[in-house]
Amino acid sequence: MPKNSNLMIGIDLGGTKMMAAALDAQGKVVATRKQPTPANLGAEGVIREIAAVVAKLVKRVKPRKVDGICVGAPGAVDPKRGIVYHAPNLGWKQYPLAKLLGKQLDLPVTVDNDVNVGAVGEFALGAGKGARNLVAIFVGTGIGSGIIINGKLFHGSFGAAGEVGHVRMVSSGPLCGCGGRGCAEALASRSAMEKIIRRSIQMGRESIIPRLLEERNKDRITSSIIEAALAANDPLMLEVYERTQHRLGVLVADVINLLDPDTVVIGGGIAERMGEHFIAPIRETAFRHVMRAEGAEQIRIVPTALKELAGSIGAAVLAWQRFAHLNVGR
Amino acid sequence: MPKNSNLMIGIDLGGTKMMAAALDAQGKVVATRKQPTPANLGAEGVIREIAAVVAKLVKRVKPRKVDGICVGAPGAVDPKRGIVYHAPNLGWKQYPLAKLLGKQLDLPVTVDNDVNVGAVGEFALGAGKGARNLVAIFVGTGIGSGIIINGKLFHGSFGAAGEVGHVRMVSSGPLCGCGGRGCAEALASRSAMEKIIRRSIQMGRESIIPRLLEERNKDRITSSIIEAALAANDPLMLEVYERTQHRLGVLVADVINLLDPDTVVIGGGIAERMGEHFIAPIRETAFRHVMRAEGAEQIRIVPTALKELAGSIGAAVLAWQRFAHLNVGR
Repeated sequence: MPKNSNLMIGIDLGGTKMMAAALDAQGKVVATRKQPTPANLGAEGVIREIAAVVAKLVKRVKPRKVDGICVGAPGAVDPKRGIVYHAPNLGWKQYPLAKLLGKQLDLPVTVDNDVNVGAVGEFALGAGKGARNLVAIFVGTGIGSGIIINGKLFHGSFGAAGEVGHVRMVSSGPLCGCGGRGCAEALASRSAMEKIIRRSIQMGRESIIPRLLEERNKDRITSSIIEAALAANDPLMLEVYERTQHRLGVLVADVINLLDPDTVVIGGGIAERMGEHFIAPIRETAFRHVMRAEGAEQIRIVPTALKELAGSIGAAVLAWQRFAHLNVGR
Repeated sequence: MPKNSNLMIGIDLGGTKMMAAALDAQGKVVATRKQPTPANLGAEGVIREIAAVVAKLVKRVKPRKVDGICVGAPGAVDPKRGIVYHAPNLGWKQYPLAKLLGKQLDLPVTVDNDVNVGAVGEFALGAGKGARNLVAIFVGTGIGSGIIINGKLFHGSFGAAGEVGHVRMVSSGPLCGCGGRGCAEALASRSAMEKIIRRSIQMGRESIIPRLLEERNKDRITSSIIEAALAANDPLMLEVYERTQHRLGVLVADVINLLDPDTVVIGGGIAERMGEHFIAPIRETAFRHVMRAEGAEQIRIVPTALKELAGSIGAAVLAWQRFAHLNVGR
């Protein structure tokens, strides 16, 4: 058994950056680290980089010891066997991450999905504290969710639970990355917003956004660009933002109608930056669309509290659960 | 503790009829009974009728003893307190069914929702045998579902899980009973089919259905009318049937994307009558719309096996669980 003063490290492995957090048994974040993911170096290069990040954190937290690592990977995983079986952003297939990284680090390693670890983070130490059934929806390039049922992360029968981004919200609509049409992800993700905005501008619509992109030397309509355009009351931005909030509100209602959670956390770049400004209209639409005998208002629909650390903290929480049978923060 | 040779009685209480089944600990149905629900006599009249049905079954199974009763009620229930808090078809609100019926019968009584007990029936002794995570979708006047997570009935945080009929499938569309637009229930229930057919006929569309209704002296387009119209290759019926199957296929995919069950059972009148003929195209559409790294084909999408007994058998299974801590059929 690990000592109570020891630590676990959680890693949120993204396609472009990785975030690491060292967490103690009391739920305190002792150290964090952010680093680019060298996806172009292949799986071996990425593993080397993860090992380097861990080594730096291990050094930083001395004399405290690190007892285990959990990596949240961007794709489909098999937590029991420690395998990432499909991570398109990294180009990984059937990759035995836990085993290979464990060998390099000489530490026990476990894996899960990036969205799942984010949900665990918010549930244990973030906006979902005190929840029993929680869905955390992350809105970014895509839309994904992690589901907590009766206080435990729910993986589904084949490890694929939570694909809320592929709920069909309209019967036709824009093409989704999955090949379908009308998916939530193709309608209400940050990248869907970006597509609609770019198309509207191409078709001659006035907007401050092209100027903002140029001024800030950005090539993507990031959350910060969205914030600035909203602050400038850009009519196109406002319209797309409100339409996205409406879609997300209906999506949240769908999830509530099916799962009846007590808490829905909304995370991802825009929610991190805009907080309640982004969530309030989503909540209002969701409550209007929820079907139930009793008041829907008892359901908490809240923005992420852990923001960009949700995934790494949640991964560390999972490491505590899996390696020390300890429910941090509960 | 009850003796192994004793029985539990499950009752599926509908707005128009009730179905009762006496089940032994080995999962054998020893006796069943079907009776109209006298909803017009009010809650007391309905309770008297349930008590009468139970009395008849108790007499029929003698000398075996009945140890407990579970009622699946058509509405929102609180299983812990034994209360039906809203059953619109019966006009009940905040009704302490377990206590009142228990007093009349001098037997322990527990309650749950009618769709939930149907799901439990299929899971324990029907089409879902061997499942771990199962969703049973019942398509009739409305569309509802019961959810089994890790082998246990999942109620959600407020007893409202499974309202799959109110997932929004299109952004506008026909008005639903819940006041919303575009709900699955308003698009793909038996009553939605009936509405579309009637409207088409009113607008001059040719169909064999008016003649079938007259010949069989029916005023509703029941599953048997649907079957007969399909057998006669009625083009309108075929069109509406196929559109409904498509919608249900997409709905099943939504449920799979979110919950990743190993088994989806489809029940209700049309599924009971048409079986695989109804399910095959639903399955095909669902597999086409499911988003996952590995093959979707490992998910079972199957028609009800217990048919009109699913609810009463499932209720009896719940009585065994709650009063004798016995998992019948598992």
